[in-house]
Amino acid sequence: MILHGYCRSTASWRVRIGLHMKGLPFTTVAHDLRTGATHRPEWVVRNPQAMVPALELADGTLLTQSLAILEWLEESVPEPPFLPGDPLARARVRAAALVIAADTHPIQNLRILKRVEALAGADAARHWAAQVIADGLGAFERLIDPAPFAFGETPGLADILVVPMLGNARRFGVDLSAFPRILSVEAACSGLPAFQASRPEAQPDFPG
Amino acid sequence: MILHGYCRSTASWRVRIGLHMKGLPFTTVAHDLRTGATHRPEWVVRNPQAMVPALELADGTLLTQSLAILEWLEESVPEPPFLPGDPLARARVRAAALVIAADTHPIQNLRILKRVEALAGADAARHWAAQVIADGLGAFERLIDPAPFAFGETPGLADILVVPMLGNARRFGVDLSAFPRILSVEAACSGLPAFQASRPEAQPDFPG
Repeated sequence: MILHGYCRSTASWRVRIGLHMKGLPFTTVAHDLRTGATHRPEWVVRNPQAMVPALELADGTLLTQSLAILEWLEESVPEPPFLPGDPLARARVRAAALVIAADTHPIQNLRILKRVEALAGADAARHWAAQVIADGLGAFERLIDPAPFAFGETPGLADILVVPMLGNARRFGVDLSAFPRILSVEAACSGLPAFQASRPEAQPDFPG
Repeated sequence: MILHGYCRSTASWRVRIGLHMKGLPFTTVAHDLRTGATHRPEWVVRNPQAMVPALELADGTLLTQSLAILEWLEESVPEPPFLPGDPLARARVRAAALVIAADTHPIQNLRILKRVEALAGADAARHWAAQVIADGLGAFERLIDPAPFAFGETPGLADILVVPMLGNARRFGVDLSAFPRILSVEAACSGLPAFQASRPEAQPDFPG
């Protein structure tokens, strides 16, 4: 499999963690977001959203949207599971993941920050990003129940989502001392090989 | 079950369609977003995101995040299915749904438009919303394969997501003539009782 991604892309980072957790080998094709690589016509033909990540299967099939890719990984390779077995517990984990995936990250990605900057300048864009991330992490902090991972003794979808989000939080100077439970989750994840191998700094296209 | 929602809330609208499709009876508690009802302390205690929708079960359990609720409905009441059976087909449907749920709607909801308005004024906020929605629908248009529903002969998750999004698109004056396939999906859905019963105009809190 080929992961089309970018070392610093939060959503690509999620998929890297997922692939490593499931023990699936993959190669990486880097699309440098800073130079607009995902807007090349030959990529837009393949992914109309002009985004990464996308996971290319052996037959050329391209899967897009990080959460859809993670759900596909979960259905294709059940062990180790990203989600608990009980439907209500699954709903809780998915809800926390969506706080990051829907209500936080897409509002502070490069595409949107460029819009904010065009309207109100670079300082306003940085402040926007920090505020959106702090709001999202604030809700996530109250939804999880670390033991030591976000929802139990094994890492899962919520952990996969929040660890890369912290990378962006630090880049925008968010004060993380308000989120002790999230930081304890990150500490638990940091010891795991799948999380270590997925860090931006560990990617072939870093520094990017 | 009690659906905590608001007649015009796009995400509440999605859950209404899902509940009606699965044939589950529910009552509605309306939270008027215009008066900040979801920010009342007694609601924030229950949902730290201070948002709707939330689905309250008979024992008081509260499920949040519309996509997590829809996945829970799918796992709890398999018929009629929101997702196809094949994992790759499921991934395609989920990806299209996430184009709306993650990369479109959260960037143009009231919470974010207030921020844009504070930075650049009401006209800029309206333009922002229209542009974000047009971008999202443009990608969705190229991902679906209407027959007559977004991904086949029966309505599913992608249809549930896009029909309410069109409500917002019209509110912000988006030119929908660029999206003929989406309009054909909407026409197919409009004849179904679950979609008819879920329209904002059919809710007890309308006009809201």
